[in-house]
Amino acid sequence: MQLQVAIDRVSLEKAVSLAKQLDGVVPIIEMGTSLVKDYGFDGMVAMRKAINHSKLLIDLKTIDEGQYEFEQGFKAQADLLTVMGASSKATLDTTYETAENASGTMMIDLLEIDDAKIKLISNYPNAVYLLHHSVDRADHIDVEQAVTDFTNQLPQVKHVAVAGGLDLQAVKQLAKQGKTEIVIVGSKIIKSPDIIKSAKEFMEAIQ
Amino acid sequence: MQLQVAIDRVSLEKAVSLAKQLDGVVPIIEMGTSLVKDYGFDGMVAMRKAINHSKLLIDLKTIDEGQYEFEQGFKAQADLLTVMGASSKATLDTTYETAENASGTMMIDLLEIDDAKIKLISNYPNAVYLLHHSVDRADHIDVEQAVTDFTNQLPQVKHVAVAGGLDLQAVKQLAKQGKTEIVIVGSKIIKSPDIIKSAKEFMEAIQ
Repeated sequence: MQLQVAIDRVSLEKAVSLAKQLDGVVPIIEMGTSLVKDYGFDGMVAMRKAINHSKLLIDLKTIDEGQYEFEQGFKAQADLLTVMGASSKATLDTTYETAENASGTMMIDLLEIDDAKIKLISNYPNAVYLLHHSVDRADHIDVEQAVTDFTNQLPQVKHVAVAGGLDLQAVKQLAKQGKTEIVIVGSKIIKSPDIIKSAKEFMEAIQ
Repeated sequence: MQLQVAIDRVSLEKAVSLAKQLDGVVPIIEMGTSLVKDYGFDGMVAMRKAINHSKLLIDLKTIDEGQYEFEQGFKAQADLLTVMGASSKATLDTTYETAENASGTMMIDLLEIDDAKIKLISNYPNAVYLLHHSVDRADHIDVEQAVTDFTNQLPQVKHVAVAGGLDLQAVKQLAKQGKTEIVIVGSKIIKSPDIIKSAKEFMEAIQ
């Protein structure tokens, strides 16, 4: 299981500093949507320059104009880009093709979509399917059960990621369960007093 | 009916130049999502500075982290901001409250959501509900019929907008029908040889 650390809602200077610190410590560093909308393409390039060892995921959250957005993301040399599962099938077809052509990875954010839609978009073999619980929602879910339900329902999906308020305990459970490929942690690491120490604790938890 | 002209997929310099030309010619100028993700917050501020007479809509397409994104958009002094109908109800509650507090307007982009979800989110009295046909989809819809169906189904919705591949003929039909408050046109104006002439033609068509 790979740990992805999400950086959000900080200045670009701070984001670049955090990325440099985390580079090589965790397998994937995420440039969050807030940074994309605050700093644009130049911000993406700055994040890419800060990262030499880890992979870079840019959380574009594309929902339309799939080809343009994904081409921009891969032009900034992202390794992974996100598209919303709530997009039209045509948008997802376009972003998948663009990702395949760029030898990059498409992550599909399944935020707020129902089982019928998930089934409809479950046949992109190289895509990562992200089970995502909105940070704006107050309720909580059993992530382990959510992963079990998802993989039972869609055995054709080979790559599963999980995000949304995960703490060390939840990450340990997912690692033990062994069905999740990428686990995404944000504030639990980024807002801790010692970011590298915290990132290493999470890395140890998933061994 | 108000005409909103969407600017997308050009350099910021070109976008600012287009905005200055359209300022006061059309009621609403849209900074498209591509410009948001390419130029970030500084791009929003540059667009705002270019516009003194028209309203500015920033097509944020927020789908999570509603409060942060809307606060940033209104900090850039947008008059209207977009949120996806595909967001969680909690996100929409947050963006609506943020818009009301900022005396701004929330436009809900109904792209790709079903009737049940639309009904669930139909009770924001000051929000504008955008019937939106994805540019990535190859099929076409009868916009006039779509507006009729929508307003019949949800009489509590007072503000309707329409977007997605609209030409002069479609805009004329919507104006005659009298049920649409904002009509959004992009490439049909922005990619025409004489943008101002084209914008004025659309303006005349809706009188």
